[in-house]
Amino acid sequence: MKTESYKGSEDTFKRIWNKIKELCLIKEICADELEGIGLGIPGPVYNQSIVKIAANFSWGNDFNAKKLMEEITKHKVKVENDVRLIALGEQRFGAAKGYENAIVIPIGTGIAAGIISGGKLVSGGFGAAGEFGHIVVNKEGYNCGCKLKGCLETYCSSKGIIQEAKKLLEENKTGKMYEAFKDNINSLDASDVFKYYKQEDKLAIQTVEKFSKYLAEGLGVLINILNPEIIILAGGVAKSSDIIIPLVRKYLPQYALGISIDIPITVSELLDSAGVKGAAALII
Amino acid sequence: MKTESYKGSEDTFKRIWNKIKELCLIKEICADELEGIGLGIPGPVYNQSIVKIAANFSWGNDFNAKKLMEEITKHKVKVENDVRLIALGEQRFGAAKGYENAIVIPIGTGIAAGIISGGKLVSGGFGAAGEFGHIVVNKEGYNCGCKLKGCLETYCSSKGIIQEAKKLLEENKTGKMYEAFKDNINSLDASDVFKYYKQEDKLAIQTVEKFSKYLAEGLGVLINILNPEIIILAGGVAKSSDIIIPLVRKYLPQYALGISIDIPITVSELLDSAGVKGAAALII
Repeated sequence: MKTESYKGSEDTFKRIWNKIKELCLIKEICADELEGIGLGIPGPVYNQSIVKIAANFSWGNDFNAKKLMEEITKHKVKVENDVRLIALGEQRFGAAKGYENAIVIPIGTGIAAGIISGGKLVSGGFGAAGEFGHIVVNKEGYNCGCKLKGCLETYCSSKGIIQEAKKLLEENKTGKMYEAFKDNINSLDASDVFKYYKQEDKLAIQTVEKFSKYLAEGLGVLINILNPEIIILAGGVAKSSDIIIPLVRKYLPQYALGISIDIPITVSELLDSAGVKGAAALII
Repeated sequence: MKTESYKGSEDTFKRIWNKIKELCLIKEICADELEGIGLGIPGPVYNQSIVKIAANFSWGNDFNAKKLMEEITKHKVKVENDVRLIALGEQRFGAAKGYENAIVIPIGTGIAAGIISGGKLVSGGFGAAGEFGHIVVNKEGYNCGCKLKGCLETYCSSKGIIQEAKKLLEENKTGKMYEAFKDNINSLDASDVFKYYKQEDKLAIQTVEKFSKYLAEGLGVLINILNPEIIILAGGVAKSSDIIIPLVRKYLPQYALGISIDIPITVSELLDSAGVKGAAALII
């Protein structure tokens, strides 16, 4: 369902609760008997309760999502950052099952890292850990929405791929991808670039190579600092993991210490349900 | 005491144990009553027992330091990576006391990070977490001893400072620092560079600015990924923290997300005793 956050947090949360009750009816579960509610939300979530900064919704800083949801539902509520819940879902039920040290990296319009260290989610001092998309990889690079310059996210996200491909198309005006999109360049999607990569279009290859090299650089940073046992790519862009993973492996030896370059890199098992299952895992 | 590791691990460990017994006599402690022995060692330490890779001593891979020390001493032994013990020492008894999320960064001939997240040391899958010195910050940079190119350590270490200063001295042949070292450039030490920085020598300023900018870049990476509450600089180079910290603060806004740039950055309280106290904390 749509968040419709402009109607206010109480309205959104009440609609979520109504939807939960509706689903309980369908599943023949008595809503009163729910053990609790796990809630995923973007932004820095502190102490599984408070959204510190209003980065995505205009519900104010230090928004106590746990308290509001508990008032509305009369159930125990735990709140966590959405990316961390994806990581938790994969660790309990998916591709990271059995690993105490795993990093799950959703790549969509943005990129972030859900980090599990010693079996626990890494949240940071005020819940802002995992902002992997905003490590600076090119000091002379693109401006990022976060106000930094040359962030990983400006290359390693669907937005970044589209931006880079458009730039190359406009500069070079050649190839199959150019022919297909020259009259409607704004309809170009990241998945199109991977499609034309498979058709050996030169500009698509350049775009995907650049994406993969920067992703390898970012993974090298995570590997050297955190020494995970496994890295799991998730999100829309990970649907092209058959292309991405071999390319990342090609570039990784330039960025990760030799002892770590054989690290398994794989793809989400739970896909779109990882976050929901992670939210359930918070309560379980 | 000297490690004299070429005599073999058993010889080194026995000499350590003899030294412990000697110190017990001086302190009028009965060695039999020791609760246990905490041992710090460089390299990736797995499960507080095994040194996975023989990076610093030629005692072989998968060297079970815990087992050997327990056999020699008949006491309970816990082993940990030396940098992580420095972090643990600072957290229990020093500048990181009271913080659940702290990063301690010893800067000497190398640079690494001892990471505490949610009150626990971050060790990684096989004990290799914290290799912060080997994140690549300049793809066209210097070759590093680790076989990567442009590692943070090639700039942000006493070795890096000396290398950079020598290069500038040889290229420019000017200034107070040049006059002092032109005939014995190999005696130049990192502390000299900070000394001439204070005397406003241009080449010393350039060297220290470059060091500080790369350190800010590295800290930005740690901050964005881990959201620590405090960063503590340690090791020999941190003796010039009065110069380094303001410069790092100047550059940090280019690399750390806005919500984090006010993070406290301070200097070790325990100095050379941090590692020893961290080793004790392992047992306590």
